[in-house]
Amino acid sequence: MQEILDRIVAKARGHARRGRPASYIPALSRARRDLLGVSVFTLDGRTYHAGDHDRPFTMQSISKVFCLACVLKLRGDRAVFALVDREPSGDPFYSLVLLEYENGRPRNPMINAGAILITSLLPGRTSAAKFAHYMRFLEGVLPGKKLDIDPRVYASEFETGQRNRALGCLMKHFGVLQSATEDAVDAYFRQCSVRVTCDDLARMGLFLAGRGVDPITGRRVIAEGHCKTINALMATCGLYDASGDFAHRVGLPGKSGVGGGILAIAPGKMSVAVYGPALDPKGSSVAGFEALEMLSQELELSLYL
Amino acid sequence: MQEILDRIVAKARGHARRGRPASYIPALSRARRDLLGVSVFTLDGRTYHAGDHDRPFTMQSISKVFCLACVLKLRGDRAVFALVDREPSGDPFYSLVLLEYENGRPRNPMINAGAILITSLLPGRTSAAKFAHYMRFLEGVLPGKKLDIDPRVYASEFETGQRNRALGCLMKHFGVLQSATEDAVDAYFRQCSVRVTCDDLARMGLFLAGRGVDPITGRRVIAEGHCKTINALMATCGLYDASGDFAHRVGLPGKSGVGGGILAIAPGKMSVAVYGPALDPKGSSVAGFEALEMLSQELELSLYL
Amino acid sequence: MQEILDRIVAKARGHARRGRPASYIPALSRARRDLLGVSVFTLDGRTYHAGDHDRPFTMQSISKVFCLACVLKLRGDRAVFALVDREPSGDPFYSLVLLEYENGRPRNPMINAGAILITSLLPGRTSAAKFAHYMRFLEGVLPGKKLDIDPRVYASEFETGQRNRALGCLMKHFGVLQSATEDAVDAYFRQCSVRVTCDDLARMGLFLAGRGVDPITGRRVIAEGHCKTINALMATCGLYDASGDFAHRVGLPGKSGVGGGILAIAPGKMSVAVYGPALDPKGSSVAGFEALEMLSQELELSLYL
Amino acid sequence: MQEILDRIVAKARGHARRGRPASYIPALSRARRDLLGVSVFTLDGRTYHAGDHDRPFTMQSISKVFCLACVLKLRGDRAVFALVDREPSGDPFYSLVLLEYENGRPRNPMINAGAILITSLLPGRTSAAKFAHYMRFLEGVLPGKKLDIDPRVYASEFETGQRNRALGCLMKHFGVLQSATEDAVDAYFRQCSVRVTCDDLARMGLFLAGRGVDPITGRRVIAEGHCKTINALMATCGLYDASGDFAHRVGLPGKSGVGGGILAIAPGKMSVAVYGPALDPKGSSVAGFEALEMLSQELELSLYL
Repeated sequence: MQEILDRIVAKARGHARRGRPASYIPALSRARRDLLGVSVFTLDGRTYHAGDHDRPFTMQSISKVFCLACVLKLRGDRAVFALVDREPSGDPFYSLVLLEYENGRPRNPMINAGAILITSLLPGRTSAAKFAHYMRFLEGVLPGKKLDIDPRVYASEFETGQRNRALGCLMKHFGVLQSATEDAVDAYFRQCSVRVTCDDLARMGLFLAGRGVDPITGRRVIAEGHCKTINALMATCGLYDASGDFAHRVGLPGKSGVGGGILAIAPGKMSVAVYGPALDPKGSSVAGFEALEMLSQELELSLYL
Repeated sequence: MQEILDRIVAKARGHARRGRPASYIPALSRARRDLLGVSVFTLDGRTYHAGDHDRPFTMQSISKVFCLACVLKLRGDRAVFALVDREPSGDPFYSLVLLEYENGRPRNPMINAGAILITSLLPGRTSAAKFAHYMRFLEGVLPGKKLDIDPRVYASEFETGQRNRALGCLMKHFGVLQSATEDAVDAYFRQCSVRVTCDDLARMGLFLAGRGVDPITGRRVIAEGHCKTINALMATCGLYDASGDFAHRVGLPGKSGVGGGILAIAPGKMSVAVYGPALDPKGSSVAGFEALEMLSQELELSLYL
Repeated sequence: MQEILDRIVAKARGHARRGRPASYIPALSRARRDLLGVSVFTLDGRTYHAGDHDRPFTMQSISKVFCLACVLKLRGDRAVFALVDREPSGDPFYSLVLLEYENGRPRNPMINAGAILITSLLPGRTSAAKFAHYMRFLEGVLPGKKLDIDPRVYASEFETGQRNRALGCLMKHFGVLQSATEDAVDAYFRQCSVRVTCDDLARMGLFLAGRGVDPITGRRVIAEGHCKTINALMATCGLYDASGDFAHRVGLPGKSGVGGGILAIAPGKMSVAVYGPALDPKGSSVAGFEALEMLSQELELSLYL
Repeated sequence: MQEILDRIVAKARGHARRGRPASYIPALSRARRDLLGVSVFTLDGRTYHAGDHDRPFTMQSISKVFCLACVLKLRGDRAVFALVDREPSGDPFYSLVLLEYENGRPRNPMINAGAILITSLLPGRTSAAKFAHYMRFLEGVLPGKKLDIDPRVYASEFETGQRNRALGCLMKHFGVLQSATEDAVDAYFRQCSVRVTCDDLARMGLFLAGRGVDPITGRRVIAEGHCKTINALMATCGLYDASGDFAHRVGLPGKSGVGGGILAIAPGKMSVAVYGPALDPKGSSVAGFEALEMLSQELELSLYL
C-alpha cells in the first residue's frame, strides 16, 4: 500500500502543471503549485501517507461536509431538508441563478448557498458563537489536535466574499436564512479558513466511512441515516459541476475545496485525503483528482463496478 | 427473500395513490394505477419476483441505458464523450435551456437530448436501420426472447413528440447530431416503445451488475470501463432532477421511465426492476421508487453506507 | 383640457380595484386603494391637475430617472455607459439572473441593479453625502420646494431591502460598483423614499420634455443628448417587463414606481404625472396606467402614430 | 435633402469595415461588404435615394413587420395577442430559452419564434397557400411591382434553418402554433427570401408612417390601432437585443434583417430604408445603422427629443 501511494504521488504530481492555484482569494494564489500529499485511514486502524501529507492548507468547501454533519446531528434531517434540497444543481458552486428561480431554496448543502444556509442553522446568535460550536464538533472528530484558522485567508475571504454575501442576502430576502446575513456569511468564511493537513482530514472523515461511528474511539458521531445522506450528497453534488466526472473517474463520495484539498470516502473501507493547490477550471485540485483516480483504480474502490 | 419481496409489494402498492400515469402520451394515461411488480436477478443466478412482474410496459427512458451501452461498445467512450457531457443537469429531462446555452452539447446521455444524440450514433442511415441494430443488442442481453414495440405508444410518441423534435433540431443546428434529425428522433421513439416485463428488464440489466459480463451466459457484453461509466451516469443522472433523492433513498445506480419502470443495479450483487404506472411529478414510478427504497434498506444495498 | 382630466380621473379610478398596493414594503401596503391624481405641465407654461394631485407619495423607482440625469451631467455618458448597458432586460426589475450571466453589468439604469450602480457614481464617499448631492439636483428641478423623505418607508426599505443588497454585493464582486456596497444601497433606499405629489413630479419632469431645458426658469438642466438618452431609456425600459405594453397603450417615455406614481414625458409638449397606489402584478399603478392611456388617446400623444 | 443623403452614404460606407455579412446562410455570406444604399419616401409624396438604392437584397426579418400587418388585419389584435406577448425579450432573436420558460408563448412578434407563430396564422393549410396570401398583401403595399424570392437564399434557409424548426416544434409542443410545424417554418423561410431594393422597402413602409393609410394610393392598408401597435413593437423590439441602442442612436421604430436591410419609420413624416450587407454582432447592418443615425440627427427625427 505504501508503495502504491508513493508511486501515485510521483506520477500525479506532474499533472499539477495543468492547473492554477485559486486566484480569487489573494492569500491562496501564492501556494506552490507542485505540492502533493495523500493520506489514507482505513476502518481497521491502519494509516498510510505520502508526499506533502503534513502540509497545512485551508479546508474551504470541504468544511461543508462537517458543518452539515454537525447541523444534521443537532436539528435532524427533517428540519434541514425543509430548507434545502438535495439535488445536483448543474451550476457552478457560486451561482445565484437557480437560487432566484427557486425562491431562495438552495439545491443542495454542497454549493455555497446551501452551506451558508446550513451555517445559519448552527446554534448561537453571533458568528463567533456559531463558529465556536462548529469547532467543538470538528475537534470531536479529530481528537487530541487543536485546530486554528489561517488569519490571512480569513481576511481575504472576508474582504472579497461579496458573491457569498449576495447569496446570503438573497436567501434572507426569501426568508430562508435562519440568522442575520452577516453572521451566517462570516461564520462560513471562518469555517473555510480552518487549517488542516491531509493526515488531519483523512482522520476527520473516518466516521463517514464507518456508518457514522469513529472506528478508533468507537464513538458514534452521527446517526447512520445522516451518514448515508452525507455520502449520497457527496457522491452526487460534492464536486459541483464536476460531480459526474468524479463519479466516473473516482467513483466515491467526495468533496473538494479551492484550498486544494479533496476528501473521498470509501464506505466500509477507508477515508482518503489529498492536497495539491493547483486547481482545474471547476475548482478542484488537478493532481489530487488524478491521484484519487489512480488510487481508486489500483484498489478497485469505485462503487460503480 | 421471496417473503421480503411479497411484503414490499403489499406495502408499496398503496403509495401509488399519490401518483398519476403519464398524461403526455395518451396511450400511457390509461394504465391501471395500482399495478406493482418487482423482479430481482442476482449475479449468482437466482431470481425472485412478486406482484405484476410479468405485466408488459414500455421501456421509455430506461432504453437510454441500453442504447448507451450499445453505442459505447461500437464507438468507444472517447468518440461518445466528445459529443456529450457526463454531468447532472439540474433540469427536467426535456429541457432545451442548457442545450442552447451550451451550444447543443447535452449534459449527459440520460436526459432526452443526450439520448437522441446517442441514438444518432447508432449505425445505419435510416431510423429503421438504427432501430434494428439496437434491437439486436437488446435481444443479445435477453437471450431467447423476442421483443416488440407497442404500436399505440409508438404512434402517440411520434405524434406528440414535438419537444423531442425541437431538441433534435437544435442539436442539428449546432452540428452535434450525427444523423438526419427525423431519423434520430424516430429511432428514439421506437426504443421508448419497446415492451418488456419486470422479469425481462431485471434480466437485461444483469451485465451492468457483473462488470459488463452476463453472468448467465458468461459472455462479455461491454467493456468493464463502459460498465463503470454507465453505472456512474445512472447514479448521478438516472432520475434527472430526482437523482439526488434516489441516491439518498435507494443509493444505487438507477434509471426510470415514464412507462412506470425503474431499473436499479447493485454492482457485484444483483439487478432489480420494478413497475408501477403512477408517476410522481418528476416522472418516476411512485410505488416503484418506494419499493426500491424498502428493498435497499432491507438488504443494505445502498452504496453510500 | 381640465374637463378631459376630470373625466379621465373619474373613469380610471374604478380600475384600481384590479390592483393592490405594494406589499413588500410594509409602509406602502396601507395606502388607500382608490386614490388617483393627475397633473400636467405643458412646455408653454400651463398646468392642469385633477383628483388627488397634491397627495404625497414616495418616488420609489421614478427616482432612477433623476439620479441618472444627475450622474450623466456629472460624469458624461461615456463613463456611465462603460458600466451599464441600455437594453431592455426582459426580466422583472429585481432580477439577479442576467446580472450574473453578464458579469455584473446591469442591462439598463431603469432596473434596480442599474440604479444602484448609477447611485454609486454620485459624488461623496458616504451614503449621506451621495444622497445630499442627489437632493440638491432634485431641488434644482423643483425650485422653491423643500423635499423630504418618508422615514417609515425608508426604514422599511432599509430593513427589507435584502434583494437590493444582493444586487449590490454581486456588482461589488464583479468590480462594477463604484462605492462601498452599503453606501450605494442605502443612498438608493433614501432616493426611493423621497416624498412628492403629482404636481411636484410633473414639474420635475418638465426639462425632459424640453430637450434638457427647464422652460419655466429657462435654465439648461442637462445636455440635449442626455435628455434624448433618458427618454429613449424610459421608452424602452421604463416599465421593466411591461415596457412593451406601455409603448403600445401610452406610447410615451415613462417611469413607474411601486409607490404608485408614473411619470410620462411627451417630448416637445408636456410632462405628466399620475398617482394611484394599487399596483398591477408587474409593479405599476393600475389606475395611473389607465389614466395615461386615456390621456394619450384623447390628446393623440403617442409617438408611434 | 439629396445632398444630405449623398453625404451620409459617403461617410457611412466606411463603417462597413467593422462588420461582416451573415455567415449562417451561405448564400448571404458572399455579398460585397462595401455596398450601401438609402431610400426615403415622405408622406407628402417626395422620394430621395442615394448609393446602392436599387440593389436587390432579401428582406429576412424585415418581413416580420409586413406579415404581422397582414395577420393583424385578418385576425384582429385580440386573437393575435392571445398567442404572443409584446414585450422586449432581452435575448437574441433566435433564443429558445424564454420560449421554454414561458410555455411556448413568444415574447413578441419581432423575434423568430413570434414571427413563426404569426406566420402560422396566415390563411391556408399549406406553406405555399400561406406564402401566396402574404405575397398578395406585400404586392398591395408596393403597387405595380412583381416580387420574387431569391431561390439560393431560400434553399439555404431551408437546409440550415434547424434552429427555427426547433422553435416551431417547441411551440407545437405547447399547442401554441396554429398550423403544422413545417408549413409555418417553410412559409417563414419563403418570406425571409423575398427580394427587394431600398426603393421598394421604403415605399412598402409608407403606410406605417401614415397611420395605416398609403398616402400615394389613399388606400387604408391597416387600422390606425394596428399601425400604432406595429410601430410600438418596432420601437421596443425591432432590433432584438440592440433595440435600446437603436432607440438611443436613431430614436425611431425600426426593423433590421440579416440580409443587410433596415426599415425605419418616422410617424407622420417618412419611411426610410437602408441596405448594407456587413452586419454587427447582433445582426444589423453596420453602415445602415450608422446612416440612419446620421439622418435622424440631421433631420431631427428622434421621437425622444
